Amino acid sequence: MLPTKLVECVPNFSEGRDTAKMEKILDCFRGKAGVKLLDYSHDTDHNRMVVTIAGQPEPVRDTMIQAIGTAVQLIDLNHHTGEHPRMGAADVVPFIPISHMTMDEAITLSREVGQEVARQFDLPVYLYESAATAPHRVNLAEVRKGEFEGLAEKMENPLWKPDFGPDKPHPTAGASIIGARHFLIAYNINLHTDRLDIAKAIAKRIRHSSGGLRYCKALGVALTSQSMVQVSINLTDFSRTSLYQVFEMVRMEAGRYGVEIANSELIGMIPLQALADTAAYYLRFEALSIDKVLEYKIWE
Amino acid sequence: MLPTKLVECVPNFSEGRDTAKMEKILDCFRGKAGVKLLDYSHDTDHNRMVVTIAGQPEPVRDTMIQAIGTAVQLIDLNHHTGEHPRMGAADVVPFIPISHMTMDEAITLSREVGQEVARQFDLPVYLYESAATAPHRVNLAEVRKGEFEGLAEKMENPLWKPDFGPDKPHPTAGASIIGARHFLIAYNINLHTDRLDIAKAIAKRIRHSSGGLRYCKALGVALTSQSMVQVSINLTDFSRTSLYQVFEMVRMEAGRYGVEIANSELIGMIPLQALADTAAYYLRFEALSIDKVLEYKIWE
Repeated sequence: MLPTKLVECVPNFSEGRDTAKMEKILDCFRGKAGVKLLDYSHDTDHNRMVVTIAGQPEPVRDTMIQAIGTAVQLIDLNHHTGEHPRMGAADVVPFIPISHMTMDEAITLSREVGQEVARQFDLPVYLYESAATAPHRVNLAEVRKGEFEGLAEKMENPLWKPDFGPDKPHPTAGASIIGARHFLIAYNINLHTDRLDIAKAIAKRIRHSSGGLRYCKALGVALTSQSMVQVSINLTDFSRTSLYQVFEMVRMEAGRYGVEIANSELIGMIPLQALADTAAYYLRFEALSIDKVLEYKIWE
Repeated sequence: MLPTKLVECVPNFSEGRDTAKMEKILDCFRGKAGVKLLDYSHDTDHNRMVVTIAGQPEPVRDTMIQAIGTAVQLIDLNHHTGEHPRMGAADVVPFIPISHMTMDEAITLSREVGQEVARQFDLPVYLYESAATAPHRVNLAEVRKGEFEGLAEKMENPLWKPDFGPDKPHPTAGASIIGARHFLIAYNINLHTDRLDIAKAIAKRIRHSSGGLRYCKALGVALTSQSMVQVSINLTDFSRTSLYQVFEMVRMEAGRYGVEIANSELIGMIPLQALADTAAYYLRFEALSIDKVLEYKIWE
Protein backbone atom coordinates (compact mmCIF):
# COMPACT_ATOMS: atom_id res chain seq x y z
CA MET A 1 0.00 0.00 0.00
CA LEU A 2 1.23 3.46 -0.85
CA PRO A 3 1.75 5.83 2.08
CA THR A 4 -1.00 8.43 2.41
CA LYS A 5 -0.23 11.85 1.02
CA LEU A 6 -1.08 14.56 3.46
CA VAL A 7 -1.49 18.27 2.80
CA GLU A 8 -2.38 21.07 5.19
CA CYS A 9 -4.38 24.12 4.13
CA VAL A 10 -4.74 27.33 6.17
CA PRO A 11 -7.38 29.51 4.48
CA ASN A 12 -7.84 33.05 5.81
CA PHE A 13 -11.36 34.44 5.43
CA SER A 14 -12.28 38.14 5.78
CA GLU A 15 -14.97 37.58 8.39
CA GLY A 16 -14.25 37.53 12.13
CA ARG A 17 -17.42 39.04 13.60
CA ASP A 18 -20.55 37.42 12.16
CA THR A 19 -20.88 34.01 13.81
CA ALA A 20 -23.56 32.76 11.42
CA LYS A 21 -21.38 33.45 8.39
CA MET A 22 -18.31 31.93 10.01
CA GLU A 23 -20.26 28.79 10.89
CA LYS A 24 -21.45 28.42 7.29
CA ILE A 25 -17.85 28.51 6.11
CA LEU A 26 -16.72 26.07 8.82
CA ASP A 27 -19.53 23.68 7.85
CA CYS A 28 -17.75 23.16 4.53
CA PHE A 29 -14.94 21.42 6.44
CA ARG A 30 -17.07 19.32 8.76
CA GLY A 31 -17.97 15.70 8.15
CA LYS A 32 -15.91 15.40 4.97
CA ALA A 33 -14.20 12.06 4.36
CA GLY A 34 -10.43 12.56 4.01
CA VAL A 35 -10.47 16.07 5.53
CA LYS A 36 -9.91 16.99 9.17
CA LEU A 37 -10.75 20.41 10.64
CA LEU A 38 -7.77 20.87 12.97
CA ASP A 39 -8.24 24.37 14.27
CA TYR A 40 -9.91 27.72 13.70
CA SER A 41 -9.75 31.09 15.36
CA HIS A 42 -11.25 34.47 14.61
CA ASP A 43 -10.67 37.96 15.84
CA THR A 44 -13.01 40.91 16.04
CA ASP A 45 -10.32 43.54 15.58
CA HIS A 46 -8.73 41.74 12.65
CA ASN A 47 -12.23 40.87 11.40
CA ARG A 48 -10.75 37.68 10.06
CA MET A 49 -10.98 33.91 10.55
CA VAL A 50 -8.08 31.52 10.10
CA VAL A 51 -8.89 27.84 9.60
CA THR A 52 -6.49 24.89 9.63
CA ILE A 53 -7.43 21.70 7.83
CA ALA A 54 -5.38 18.68 6.80
CA GLY A 55 -6.11 15.65 4.70
CA GLN A 56 -5.61 13.91 1.40
CA PRO A 57 -5.01 16.14 -1.63
CA GLU A 58 -8.20 15.49 -3.61
CA PRO A 59 -10.73 15.87 -0.77
CA VAL A 60 -8.84 18.95 0.53
CA ARG A 61 -8.98 20.45 -2.99
CA ASP A 62 -12.70 19.83 -3.42
CA THR A 63 -13.50 21.10 0.08
CA MET A 64 -11.49 24.27 -0.46
CA ILE A 65 -13.26 25.03 -3.74
CA GLN A 66 -16.57 24.76 -1.91
CA ALA A 67 -15.38 26.89 1.03
CA ILE A 68 -14.03 29.65 -1.22
CA GLY A 69 -17.37 29.68 -3.04
CA THR A 70 -19.20 30.01 0.27
CA ALA A 71 -16.98 32.93 1.33
CA VAL A 72 -17.46 34.67 -2.05
CA GLN A 73 -21.20 34.34 -1.60
CA LEU A 74 -21.35 35.53 2.05
CA ILE A 75 -18.66 38.21 2.44
CA ASP A 76 -18.95 41.69 0.94
CA LEU A 77 -15.66 43.57 1.20
CA ASN A 78 -17.37 46.87 0.42
CA HIS A 79 -18.67 46.70 4.00
CA HIS A 80 -15.60 45.15 5.60
CA THR A 81 -13.46 46.95 8.15
CA GLY A 82 -10.64 45.43 10.18
CA GLU A 83 -7.05 45.85 11.25
CA HIS A 84 -5.61 43.10 9.10
CA PRO A 85 -4.78 43.84 5.44
CA ARG A 86 -7.06 41.95 3.00
CA MET A 87 -7.82 41.83 -0.68
CA GLY A 88 -10.50 39.17 -0.92
CA ALA A 89 -13.33 37.34 0.83
CA ALA A 90 -11.28 34.15 0.81
CA ASP A 91 -8.20 36.28 1.21
CA VAL A 92 -5.27 33.85 1.30
CA VAL A 93 -5.27 30.09 0.71
CA PRO A 94 -1.90 28.36 1.18
CA PHE A 95 -1.34 24.63 0.67
CA ILE A 96 1.43 23.12 2.79
CA PRO A 97 2.90 19.68 2.06
CA ILE A 98 3.07 17.71 5.32
CA SER A 99 4.01 14.14 4.46
CA HIS A 100 4.66 11.99 1.42
CA MET A 101 4.06 15.01 -0.70
CA THR A 102 6.40 17.32 -2.59
CA MET A 103 6.16 21.10 -2.91
CA ASP A 104 5.55 20.57 -6.64
CA GLU A 105 2.45 18.52 -5.82
CA ALA A 106 1.24 21.28 -3.48
CA ILE A 107 1.81 23.83 -6.26
CA THR A 108 -0.25 21.70 -8.68
CA LEU A 109 -3.02 21.50 -6.10
CA SER A 110 -3.04 25.27 -5.61
CA ARG A 111 -3.24 25.82 -9.37
CA GLU A 112 -6.16 23.39 -9.69
CA VAL A 113 -8.03 25.19 -6.93
CA GLY A 114 -7.22 28.62 -8.39
CA GLN A 115 -8.34 27.67 -11.88
CA GLU A 116 -11.57 26.10 -10.66
CA VAL A 117 -12.68 28.91 -8.32
CA ALA A 118 -11.90 31.47 -11.05
CA ARG A 119 -14.14 29.53 -13.43
CA GLN A 120 -16.98 28.72 -11.03
CA PHE A 121 -17.19 32.06 -9.19
CA ASP A 122 -15.80 34.51 -11.76
CA LEU A 123 -13.09 35.38 -9.25
CA PRO A 124 -9.63 36.76 -10.07
CA VAL A 125 -6.85 34.63 -8.52
CA TYR A 126 -3.18 35.41 -7.86
CA LEU A 127 -0.74 32.58 -7.27
CA TYR A 128 1.88 33.34 -4.58
CA GLU A 129 4.91 31.95 -2.73
CA SER A 130 6.15 28.69 -4.27
CA ALA A 131 3.25 28.75 -6.77
CA ALA A 132 4.03 32.30 -7.97
CA THR A 133 4.37 32.78 -11.72
CA ALA A 134 6.77 35.73 -11.43
CA PRO A 135 9.34 36.84 -8.82
CA HIS A 136 7.39 39.99 -7.87
CA ARG A 137 4.41 37.81 -6.96
CA VAL A 138 6.19 35.56 -4.45
CA ASN A 139 5.69 37.78 -1.39
CA LEU A 140 2.15 37.90 -0.02
CA ALA A 141 2.49 41.50 1.21
CA GLU A 142 3.44 42.65 -2.30
CA VAL A 143 0.52 40.85 -3.92
CA ARG A 144 -1.94 42.21 -1.35
CA LYS A 145 -0.60 45.79 -1.43
CA GLY A 146 -3.41 48.24 -2.23
CA GLU A 147 -5.90 45.78 -0.70
CA PHE A 148 -9.51 45.48 -1.83
CA GLU A 149 -9.94 49.22 -2.20
CA GLY A 150 -6.95 49.58 -4.54
CA LEU A 151 -7.50 46.39 -6.51
CA ALA A 152 -9.25 47.79 -9.60
CA GLU A 153 -6.43 50.27 -10.15
CA LYS A 154 -3.73 47.69 -9.43
CA MET A 155 -5.18 45.31 -12.02
CA GLU A 156 -4.83 47.90 -14.78
CA ASN A 157 -1.08 47.39 -14.49
CA PRO A 158 -0.09 44.43 -16.76
CA LEU A 159 2.36 43.32 -14.02
CA TRP A 160 -0.67 42.54 -11.86
CA LYS A 161 -2.88 40.71 -14.34
CA PRO A 162 -4.37 37.78 -12.35
CA ASP A 163 -3.17 34.24 -12.99
CA PHE A 164 -6.73 33.00 -13.38
CA GLY A 165 -10.14 34.64 -13.79
CA PRO A 166 -11.28 38.06 -15.01
CA ASP A 167 -9.05 41.13 -15.23
CA LYS A 168 -11.23 43.11 -12.87
CA PRO A 169 -12.10 42.57 -9.21
CA HIS A 170 -15.08 40.51 -8.15
CA PRO A 171 -17.51 43.27 -7.06
CA THR A 172 -17.92 41.95 -3.50
CA ALA A 173 -15.22 39.29 -3.03
CA GLY A 174 -12.20 41.07 -4.54
CA ALA A 175 -9.52 38.54 -5.46
CA SER A 176 -8.06 35.45 -3.81
CA ILE A 177 -4.37 34.80 -3.27
CA ILE A 178 -3.73 31.07 -3.53
CA GLY A 179 -0.43 29.25 -3.34
CA ALA A 180 1.90 26.68 -1.85
CA ARG A 181 4.45 27.26 0.90
CA HIS A 182 6.36 25.65 3.74
CA PHE A 183 4.86 25.33 7.21
CA LEU A 184 4.73 28.56 9.20
CA ILE A 185 3.85 29.47 12.77
CA ALA A 186 1.40 32.36 13.12
CA TYR A 187 2.01 33.94 16.49
CA ASN A 188 0.80 37.20 18.05
CA ILE A 189 2.27 39.04 21.03
CA ASN A 190 -0.02 41.51 22.81
CA LEU A 191 1.42 44.52 24.62
CA HIS A 192 0.17 46.35 27.72
CA THR A 193 -0.27 49.63 25.86
CA ASP A 194 -2.69 51.14 23.36
CA ARG A 195 0.08 52.95 21.46
CA LEU A 196 0.06 51.52 17.94
CA ASP A 197 3.30 53.35 17.10
CA ILE A 198 5.11 51.18 19.65
CA ALA A 199 3.77 47.91 18.15
CA LYS A 200 4.77 49.12 14.69
CA ALA A 201 8.25 50.14 15.84
CA ILE A 202 8.83 46.76 17.49
CA ALA A 203 7.52 44.87 14.45
CA LYS A 204 9.94 46.81 12.27
CA ARG A 205 12.86 45.96 14.57
CA ILE A 206 12.23 42.22 14.61
CA ARG A 207 11.21 41.49 11.02
CA HIS A 208 13.62 40.34 8.36
CA SER A 209 12.59 42.89 5.75
CA SER A 210 13.82 45.79 7.87
CA GLY A 211 16.92 44.23 9.47
CA GLY A 212 15.51 41.75 12.02
CA LEU A 213 15.40 37.98 12.28
CA ARG A 214 15.86 36.00 9.08
CA TYR A 215 12.59 33.98 9.08
CA CYS A 216 10.35 36.50 10.83
CA LYS A 217 7.60 38.63 9.32
CA ALA A 218 5.83 41.08 11.62
CA LEU A 219 3.42 43.97 11.70
CA GLY A 220 1.93 46.20 14.38
CA VAL A 221 -1.85 45.98 14.84
CA ALA A 222 -4.30 47.82 17.11
CA LEU A 223 -6.59 45.63 19.25
CA THR A 224 -9.13 48.36 19.90
CA SER A 225 -11.61 46.06 21.62
CA GLN A 226 -8.98 45.21 24.26
CA SER A 227 -7.27 48.62 24.47
CA MET A 228 -4.03 46.91 23.53
CA VAL A 229 -1.71 46.69 20.56
CA GLN A 230 -0.27 43.57 19.02
CA VAL A 231 2.85 42.49 17.21
CA SER A 232 1.46 40.00 14.70
CA ILE A 233 4.15 37.55 13.60
CA ASN A 234 4.68 34.88 10.96
CA LEU A 235 7.63 32.55 11.57
CA THR A 236 8.40 31.04 8.18
CA ASP A 237 11.09 28.59 9.36
CA PHE A 238 10.84 27.88 13.09
CA SER A 239 13.82 25.50 12.97
CA ARG A 240 16.09 28.44 12.13
CA THR A 241 14.36 31.41 13.74
CA SER A 242 12.92 30.17 17.03
CA LEU A 243 9.77 31.22 18.83
CA TYR A 244 11.76 32.12 21.93
CA GLN A 245 14.10 34.38 19.93
CA VAL A 246 11.13 36.33 18.63
CA PHE A 247 9.51 36.51 22.07
CA GLU A 248 12.70 37.67 23.79
CA MET A 249 13.41 40.25 21.07
CA VAL A 250 9.92 41.69 21.44
CA ARG A 251 10.36 41.84 25.23
CA MET A 252 13.74 43.56 24.78
CA GLU A 253 12.43 46.17 22.37
CA ALA A 254 9.29 46.76 24.44
CA GLY A 255 11.53 47.48 27.42
CA ARG A 256 12.76 50.67 25.70
CA TYR A 257 9.26 52.05 26.00
CA GLY A 258 8.65 50.71 29.49
CA VAL A 259 6.01 48.39 28.02
CA GLU A 260 5.31 44.84 29.24
CA ILE A 261 4.13 41.85 27.22
CA ALA A 262 0.54 41.06 28.24
CA ASN A 263 0.20 37.64 26.62
CA SER A 264 0.66 35.87 23.34
CA GLU A 265 -1.40 33.57 21.17
CA LEU A 266 -1.01 30.98 18.48
CA ILE A 267 -3.15 31.12 15.35
CA GLY A 268 -3.40 27.59 14.01
CA MET A 269 -1.03 24.79 14.84
CA ILE A 270 2.43 24.55 16.39
CA PRO A 271 4.79 21.71 15.49
CA LEU A 272 5.93 19.50 18.34
CA GLN A 273 9.58 20.31 17.63
CA ALA A 274 8.90 24.04 18.14
CA LEU A 275 7.45 23.30 21.58
CA ALA A 276 10.44 21.12 22.44
CA ASP A 277 12.84 23.87 21.29
CA THR A 278 11.03 26.42 23.47
CA ALA A 279 11.13 24.23 26.59
CA ALA A 280 14.77 23.36 25.90
CA TYR A 281 15.76 27.03 25.77
CA TYR A 282 13.98 28.15 28.90
CA LEU A 283 14.71 25.08 31.01
CA ARG A 284 18.29 24.90 29.66
CA PHE A 285 18.15 21.43 28.20
CA GLU A 286 21.11 21.00 25.88
CA ALA A 287 18.58 19.67 23.39
CA LEU A 288 15.23 17.96 23.59
CA SER A 289 14.44 15.28 21.05
CA ILE A 290 10.78 14.78 20.26
CA ASP A 291 11.47 11.06 20.75
CA LYS A 292 11.45 11.85 24.49
CA VAL A 293 7.90 13.15 24.33
CA LEU A 294 5.33 10.72 25.61
CA GLU A 295 2.03 11.17 23.84
CA TYR A 296 -0.48 9.47 26.05
CA LYS A 297 -3.16 10.08 23.52
CA ILE A 298 -1.56 8.03 20.75
CA TRP A 299 -2.36 4.97 22.80
CA GLU A 300 -5.94 5.85 23.51
CA MET B 1 -11.87 -5.65 19.67
CA LEU B 2 -10.86 -4.59 23.16
CA PRO B 3 -8.61 -1.53 23.41
CA THR B 4 -4.97 -2.38 24.06
CA LYS B 5 -3.83 -2.11 27.65
CA LEU B 6 -0.61 -0.19 27.92
CA VAL B 7 1.80 -0.05 30.86
CA GLU B 8 5.07 1.82 31.21
CA CYS B 9 7.97 0.52 33.27
CA VAL B 10 11.02 2.56 34.32
CA PRO B 11 13.56 0.19 35.87
CA ASN B 12 16.63 1.73 37.54
CA PHE B 13 19.75 -0.45 37.42
CA SER B 14 22.86 0.11 39.57
CA GLU B 15 25.29 0.21 36.66
CA GLY B 16 26.18 3.40 34.78
CA ARG B 17 29.81 2.83 33.83
CA ASP B 18 30.37 -0.61 32.28
CA THR B 19 29.02 -0.43 28.72
CA ALA B 20 29.14 -4.19 28.15
CA LYS B 21 26.98 -4.85 31.21
CA MET B 22 24.52 -2.09 30.34
CA GLU B 23 24.18 -3.44 26.82
CA LYS B 24 23.41 -6.94 28.14
CA ILE B 25 20.59 -5.50 30.24
CA LEU B 26 19.28 -3.38 27.35
CA ASP B 27 19.29 -6.44 25.09
CA CYS B 28 16.53 -7.90 27.27
CA PHE B 29 14.23 -5.12 25.99
CA ARG B 30 15.17 -5.27 22.32
CA GLY B 31 13.25 -7.16 19.66
CA LYS B 32 10.48 -8.27 22.03
CA ALA B 33 6.97 -8.43 20.61
CA GLY B 34 4.63 -6.20 22.60
CA VAL B 35 7.44 -4.25 24.29
CA LYS B 36 9.01 -1.00 23.10
CA LEU B 37 12.30 0.38 24.44
CA LEU B 38 11.45 4.10 24.56
CA ASP B 39 14.51 5.59 26.23
CA TYR B 40 17.55 4.93 28.35
CA SER B 41 20.21 7.04 29.95
CA HIS B 42 23.10 6.36 32.27
CA ASP B 43 25.39 8.48 34.34
CA THR B 44 28.93 7.84 35.49
CA ASP B 45 28.62 9.85 38.71
CA HIS B 46 25.31 8.29 39.66
CA ASN B 47 26.65 4.93 38.39
CA ARG B 48 23.12 4.12 37.39
CA MET B 49 21.07 3.41 34.27
CA VAL B 50 17.41 4.34 33.88
CA VAL B 51 15.42 2.58 31.18
CA THR B 52 11.92 3.40 29.92
CA ILE B 53 9.84 0.73 28.25
CA ALA B 54 6.16 0.53 27.41
CA GLY B 55 3.92 -2.20 26.11
CA GLN B 56 1.25 -4.72 26.88
CA PRO B 57 1.16 -6.03 30.47
CA GLU B 58 2.16 -9.67 29.88
CA PRO B 59 5.16 -9.08 27.59
CA VAL B 60 6.33 -6.21 29.84
CA ARG B 61 6.08 -8.50 32.87
CA ASP B 62 8.04 -11.34 31.24
CA THR B 63 10.68 -8.97 29.89
CA MET B 64 11.15 -7.31 33.28
CA ILE B 65 11.62 -10.67 35.03
CA GLN B 66 14.36 -11.50 32.53
CA ALA B 67 16.02 -8.06 32.87
CA ILE B 68 16.02 -8.19 36.67
CA GLY B 69 17.61 -11.66 36.46
CA THR B 70 20.30 -10.29 34.14
CA ALA B 71 21.05 -7.39 36.51
CA VAL B 72 21.25 -9.76 39.51
CA GLN B 73 23.73 -11.88 37.59
CA LEU B 74 25.94 -9.00 36.33
CA ILE B 75 26.00 -6.37 39.08
CA ASP B 76 27.85 -6.79 42.37
CA LEU B 77 26.91 -4.06 44.84
CA ASN B 78 29.91 -4.93 47.05
CA HIS B 79 31.99 -3.15 44.40
CA HIS B 80 29.51 -0.41 43.53
CA THR B 81 30.18 3.25 44.22
CA GLY B 82 28.04 6.14 43.03
CA GLU B 83 26.29 9.30 44.09
CA HIS B 84 22.76 7.97 43.84
CA PRO B 85 21.32 6.00 46.78
CA ARG B 86 20.73 2.32 45.92
CA MET B 87 19.81 -0.91 47.65
CA GLY B 88 19.84 -3.43 44.82
CA ALA B 89 21.25 -4.38 41.41
CA ALA B 90 17.80 -3.90 39.88
CA ASP B 91 17.23 -1.12 42.37
CA VAL B 92 13.74 0.22 41.64
CA VAL B 93 11.11 -1.11 39.23
CA PRO B 94 7.91 0.96 38.99
CA PHE B 95 4.97 0.03 36.76
CA ILE B 96 2.89 2.98 35.51
CA PRO B 97 -0.56 2.55 33.96
CA ILE B 98 -0.72 4.57 30.74
CA SER B 99 -3.94 3.67 28.98
CA HIS B 100 -6.91 1.34 29.37
CA MET B 101 -5.36 0.10 32.56
CA THR B 102 -6.15 0.77 36.21
CA MET B 103 -3.71 1.30 39.06
CA ASP B 104 -4.99 -1.97 40.55
CA GLU B 105 -3.91 -3.82 37.43
CA ALA B 106 -0.46 -2.20 37.64
CA ILE B 107 -0.25 -3.27 41.30
CA THR B 108 -1.11 -6.86 40.34
CA LEU B 109 1.58 -6.76 37.66
CA SER B 110 4.19 -5.51 40.14
CA ARG B 111 3.27 -8.28 42.60
CA GLU B 112 3.58 -10.95 39.91
CA VAL B 113 7.03 -9.67 38.94
CA GLY B 114 8.13 -9.41 42.58
CA GLN B 115 6.97 -12.90 43.44
CA GLU B 116 8.59 -14.44 40.38
CA VAL B 117 12.02 -12.75 40.67
CA ALA B 118 12.11 -13.62 44.37
CA ARG B 119 11.50 -17.26 43.49
CA GLN B 120 13.79 -17.50 40.45
CA PHE B 121 16.75 -15.47 41.74
CA ASP B 122 16.44 -15.89 45.53
CA LEU B 123 16.08 -12.11 45.78
CA PRO B 124 14.32 -10.18 48.56
CA VAL B 125 11.66 -7.81 47.19
CA TYR B 126 9.93 -4.81 48.78
CA LEU B 127 6.69 -3.51 47.31
CA TYR B 128 6.39 0.33 47.33
CA GLU B 129 4.15 3.26 46.42
CA SER B 130 0.66 2.11 45.37
CA ALA B 131 1.73 -1.53 45.75
CA ALA B 132 3.03 -1.07 49.31
CA THR B 133 1.72 -3.49 51.94
CA ALA B 134 2.09 -1.03 54.84
CA PRO B 135 2.04 2.77 55.12
CA HIS B 136 5.71 3.01 56.15
CA ARG B 137 6.67 1.26 52.88
CA VAL B 138 4.96 3.69 50.52
CA ASN B 139 7.84 6.15 50.22
CA LEU B 140 10.82 4.95 48.19
CA ALA B 141 13.34 6.94 50.23
CA GLU B 142 12.14 5.24 53.43
CA VAL B 143 12.34 1.77 51.92
CA ARG B 144 15.83 2.41 50.53
CA LYS B 145 17.19 4.06 53.69
CA GLY B 146 20.34 2.28 54.87
CA GLU B 147 21.02 1.26 51.27
CA PHE B 148 22.85 -1.93 50.31
CA GLU B 149 25.40 -1.59 53.10
CA GLY B 150 22.74 -1.35 55.83
CA LEU B 151 20.34 -3.89 54.37
CA ALA B 152 21.27 -6.92 56.48
CA GLU B 153 20.75 -4.96 59.69
CA LYS B 154 17.53 -3.34 58.40
CA MET B 155 16.06 -6.74 57.57
CA GLU B 156 16.45 -7.92 61.16
CA ASN B 157 13.69 -5.44 62.06
CA PRO B 158 10.30 -7.19 61.57
CA LEU B 159 8.96 -3.91 60.15
CA TRP B 160 11.29 -4.43 57.20
CA LYS B 161 10.70 -8.09 56.43
CA PRO B 162 10.59 -8.28 52.59
CA ASP B 163 7.27 -8.85 50.85
CA PHE B 164 8.73 -11.70 48.81
CA GLY B 165 11.92 -13.77 48.93
CA PRO B 166 14.42 -14.55 51.67
CA ASP B 167 14.81 -12.55 54.90
CA LYS B 168 18.43 -11.70 54.18
CA PRO B 169 20.03 -9.68 51.36
CA HIS B 170 21.11 -11.30 48.12
CA PRO B 171 24.91 -11.40 48.61
CA THR B 172 25.68 -9.34 45.48
CA ALA B 173 22.33 -7.94 44.31
CA GLY B 174 20.85 -6.70 47.61
CA ALA B 175 17.09 -6.31 47.30
CA SER B 176 14.76 -4.92 44.67
CA ILE B 177 12.04 -2.32 45.28
CA ILE B 178 9.12 -3.01 42.95
CA GLY B 179 5.81 -1.24 42.76
CA ALA B 180 3.16 0.72 40.93
CA ARG B 181 2.82 4.50 40.75
CA HIS B 182 1.55 7.40 38.67
CA PHE B 183 3.64 8.93 35.91
CA LEU B 184 6.55 11.08 37.10
CA ILE B 185 9.03 13.38 35.41
CA ALA B 186 12.65 12.78 36.40
CA TYR B 187 14.50 16.02 35.89
CA ASN B 188 17.97 17.18 36.94
CA ILE B 189 19.28 20.73 37.17
CA ASN B 190 23.05 21.17 37.10
CA LEU B 191 24.68 24.13 38.84
CA HIS B 192 27.84 26.06 37.96
CA THR B 193 29.52 25.21 41.25
CA ASP B 194 31.19 22.19 42.86
CA ARG B 195 29.74 22.99 46.30
CA LEU B 196 27.54 20.05 47.24
CA ASP B 197 26.19 21.91 50.27
CA ILE B 198 24.55 24.43 47.91
CA ALA B 199 22.81 21.69 45.88
CA LYS B 200 21.62 20.06 49.09
CA ALA B 201 20.34 23.37 50.51
CA ILE B 202 18.41 24.13 47.30
CA ALA B 203 16.96 20.61 47.16
CA LYS B 204 15.75 21.02 50.71
CA ARG B 205 14.10 24.36 49.90
CA ILE B 206 12.15 23.11 46.88
CA ARG B 207 11.03 19.65 47.99
CA HIS B 208 7.66 18.93 49.56
CA SER B 209 9.00 16.98 52.51
CA SER B 210 10.82 20.02 53.89
CA GLY B 211 8.34 22.77 53.00
CA GLY B 212 8.67 23.16 49.22
CA LEU B 213 6.44 22.37 46.27
CA ARG B 214 3.66 19.83 46.80
CA TYR B 215 4.61 17.27 44.08
CA CYS B 216 8.38 17.77 44.11
CA LYS B 217 11.03 15.41 45.48
CA ALA B 218 14.63 16.56 45.31
CA LEU B 219 18.14 15.78 46.49
CA GLY B 220 21.57 17.33 46.04
CA VAL B 221 24.14 15.21 44.19
CA ALA B 222 27.83 15.78 43.32
CA LEU B 223 28.77 15.39 39.63
CA THR B 224 32.46 14.92 40.29
CA SER B 225 33.33 14.08 36.68
CA GLN B 226 32.00 17.47 35.60
CA SER B 227 33.10 19.51 38.65
CA MET B 228 29.47 20.44 39.17
CA VAL B 229 26.65 19.68 41.54
CA GLN B 230 23.11 18.73 40.67
CA VAL B 231 19.63 19.14 42.08
CA SER B 232 18.05 15.80 41.15
CA ILE B 233 14.26 16.10 40.99
CA ASN B 234 11.22 13.88 40.72
CA LEU B 235 7.98 15.63 39.79
CA THR B 236 5.23 13.26 40.86
CA ASP B 237 2.31 15.24 39.42
CA PHE B 238 3.42 17.64 36.69
CA SER B 239 -0.14 18.87 36.13
CA ARG B 240 -0.12 20.39 39.61
CA THR B 241 3.52 21.21 40.24
CA SER B 242 4.95 22.41 36.93
CA LEU B 243 8.42 21.99 35.50
CA TYR B 244 8.83 25.75 35.16
CA GLN B 245 7.91 26.30 38.83
CA VAL B 246 10.68 23.94 39.87
CA PHE B 247 13.16 25.48 37.45
CA GLU B 248 12.39 29.04 38.53
CA MET B 249 12.54 28.12 42.23
CA VAL B 250 15.95 26.52 41.77
CA ARG B 251 17.14 29.62 39.90
CA MET B 252 15.81 31.85 42.67
CA GLU B 253 17.44 29.87 45.47
CA ALA B 254 20.72 29.53 43.55
CA GLY B 255 20.79 33.31 43.24
CA ARG B 256 21.32 33.60 47.01
CA TYR B 257 24.69 31.93 46.52
CA GLY B 258 25.55 33.79 43.33
CA VAL B 259 25.30 30.47 41.48
CA GLU B 260 23.98 30.07 37.93
CA ILE B 261 22.12 27.11 36.44
CA ALA B 262 24.43 25.42 33.93
CA ASN B 263 21.87 23.19 32.21
CA SER B 264 19.21 20.66 32.95
CA GLU B 265 18.32 17.21 31.70
CA LEU B 266 15.41 14.84 31.47
CA ILE B 267 15.78 11.23 32.54
CA GLY B 268 13.22 9.24 30.59
CA MET B 269 10.15 10.67 28.97
CA ILE B 270 8.23 13.94 29.22
CA PRO B 271 4.49 14.10 28.53
CA LEU B 272 3.40 16.39 25.73
CA GLN B 273 1.19 18.38 28.10
CA ALA B 274 4.20 19.22 30.30
CA LEU B 275 6.01 20.65 27.26
CA ALA B 276 2.94 22.66 26.30
CA ASP B 277 2.63 24.00 29.87
CA THR B 278 6.28 25.06 29.83
CA ALA B 279 6.00 26.89 26.51
CA ALA B 280 2.74 28.50 27.61
CA TYR B 281 4.33 29.90 30.76
CA TYR B 282 7.44 31.34 29.16
CA LEU B 283 5.78 32.63 25.99
CA ARG B 284 2.76 33.86 27.96
CA PHE B 285 0.09 31.88 26.17
CA GLU B 286 -3.04 31.95 28.29
CA ALA B 287 -3.12 28.20 27.77
CA LEU B 288 -1.85 25.80 25.14
CA SER B 289 -3.99 22.81 24.32
CA ILE B 290 -2.14 19.78 23.01
CA ASP B 291 -4.76 19.68 20.26
CA LYS B 292 -2.85 22.61 18.74
CA VAL B 293 0.31 20.55 18.44
CA LEU B 294 0.98 19.26 14.96
CA GLU B 295 2.85 15.99 15.04
CA TYR B 296 4.33 15.63 11.61
CA LYS B 297 5.64 12.23 12.49
CA ILE B 298 2.25 10.65 13.15
CA TRP B 299 1.60 10.85 9.44
CA GLU B 300 4.91 9.44 8.31
